[in-house]
Amino acid sequence: MALPDFVKIVEVGPRDGLQNEQAEVTTAQKVELINRLSASGLKAVEAGSFVSPRWVPQMADSKDVLQGINRLDGVAYPCLTPNMVGFDAAMACDVREVAIFGAASESFSQKNINCSIAESLERFQPIMEAASAHDVRVRGYVSCVLGCPYEGSIDPVKVAEVAKTLLDMGCYEISLGDTVGVGTAQETKRLIETVGQDVPVDKLAGHFHDTYGQALANIYAAMEMGVSVFDSSVAGLGGCPYAKGASGNVATEDVLYMLRGCGVETGVDFDALVAAGRYISEIIGRPPVSKVSRALMAKG
Amino acid sequence: MALPDFVKIVEVGPRDGLQNEQAEVTTAQKVELINRLSASGLKAVEAGSFVSPRWVPQMADSKDVLQGINRLDGVAYPCLTPNMVGFDAAMACDVREVAIFGAASESFSQKNINCSIAESLERFQPIMEAASAHDVRVRGYVSCVLGCPYEGSIDPVKVAEVAKTLLDMGCYEISLGDTVGVGTAQETKRLIETVGQDVPVDKLAGHFHDTYGQALANIYAAMEMGVSVFDSSVAGLGGCPYAKGASGNVATEDVLYMLRGCGVETGVDFDALVAAGRYISEIIGRPPVSKVSRALMAKG
Repeated sequence: MALPDFVKIVEVGPRDGLQNEQAEVTTAQKVELINRLSASGLKAVEAGSFVSPRWVPQMADSKDVLQGINRLDGVAYPCLTPNMVGFDAAMACDVREVAIFGAASESFSQKNINCSIAESLERFQPIMEAASAHDVRVRGYVSCVLGCPYEGSIDPVKVAEVAKTLLDMGCYEISLGDTVGVGTAQETKRLIETVGQDVPVDKLAGHFHDTYGQALANIYAAMEMGVSVFDSSVAGLGGCPYAKGASGNVATEDVLYMLRGCGVETGVDFDALVAAGRYISEIIGRPPVSKVSRALMAKG
Repeated sequence: MALPDFVKIVEVGPRDGLQNEQAEVTTAQKVELINRLSASGLKAVEAGSFVSPRWVPQMADSKDVLQGINRLDGVAYPCLTPNMVGFDAAMACDVREVAIFGAASESFSQKNINCSIAESLERFQPIMEAASAHDVRVRGYVSCVLGCPYEGSIDPVKVAEVAKTLLDMGCYEISLGDTVGVGTAQETKRLIETVGQDVPVDKLAGHFHDTYGQALANIYAAMEMGVSVFDSSVAGLGGCPYAKGASGNVATEDVLYMLRGCGVETGVDFDALVAAGRYISEIIGRPPVSKVSRALMAKG
């Protein structure tokens, strides 16, 4: 199958990335980062999480961030809303897109949110209804689609079930997350093939972690299966919570480099994106976890 | 196209890798590394270079290394022989496979060996004749196949010319090297398609550098084009001479992980290979440049 002409990048660095970083990032710095990212041409920048600051202190200022950023026309700024308290707080900031999440692994669901997959999805029903009433789009995440830190391999049929449920609940797009980064290209193809029987491929996004260095090969394989939306994190922000010190989210710079070389349009200014990655990397005090960014710096 | 059932890994760490490392590695340590690599099931381990120690001091002990290793049946231990002095020295150590190299970039050839591509290939003619007389196999390398540090992009037709010349001279296999690591998956496919018109794909090997993080995606794409031999370097030994501090040769660990996940056989014991990478990394005093190895260490 030919590659898609255009791929949409969903930039998750300011939320999924920064919530897993230890360094302190001020509200003004988050606002600046998000403004740089949207100015680079990205059409979706995950901007915050409306969740108890006891759980995720890094996102305690999401309200101020959302009120501080320069919202560009045509750019979505989705936020995580795990419950109605969070959803209402997001609405108070005029958030127009929210995200909910389910796991494809029962063990992961139990250990992380202390309920079954089915229960976790039921709990999102009020959010779906409220979102519909507010004309707010909802994106669904499925975690552990290619493996689970607790139970190992995951049956693609299970992923398809969860993805289909999220779609039927009203999510406009389902992002399939290889949360531990263990999947490979051929496993990715089998996954898309199976899930694609229940969910149209143009409703699927790929969310790959580079923990085992497989993310770009997986994205390439997914593109060959028709997937044309991918999540990534500028400068590889976030790391891997299941292997401290290892890579997590694939770096947006590396994805863009591959897509550009493969002749796939993204609408993103590569140099501006690389500069945004260096900006936030200086703040958190380490080099970008992006081979592209490091190679460009090493060349001088 | 389906992936190949079996991929042969040509391990280049002890030569191509170590010759670009600054840390001192003793002859005994090189011997131990090569013995561990061959014991892991690899069928080809590049073992040394018979070149003036003024140019490559790291390889000055290749004679002693070749005489010290435990040579396993069915394993090739190719050595670089840039000229007849080197070839004769290699024969004195009973080397059964040698390697020669040409560039696909005129600028690279001029700057590195001070002659044109055509002249450089002519100079190998006496080695080809001597190799034939000694019943020694010759592997041909082509560098800069997806880009050149001096002239940028490279026409695949030029690569095909050089590869065809090496084949016609008697090389049993042509390894296509992305010396600067700039190529992407779709460019890799176009390259193999073009070169494949002049050289049978089963005579081609892929030699990818991970400088821009593209190596695994490129290997995957090359496999889809029918290539089933790939060069890699245990622990990512070597770095990138054109971007100091950046990655060079793709790490064997990462390649093996992908192939295993994709259901492609290699005959290599993954754990033994990872252990060999940690062994040499401790000697040179830095963590393996392999995301797989780092992720496994981080998991503990």
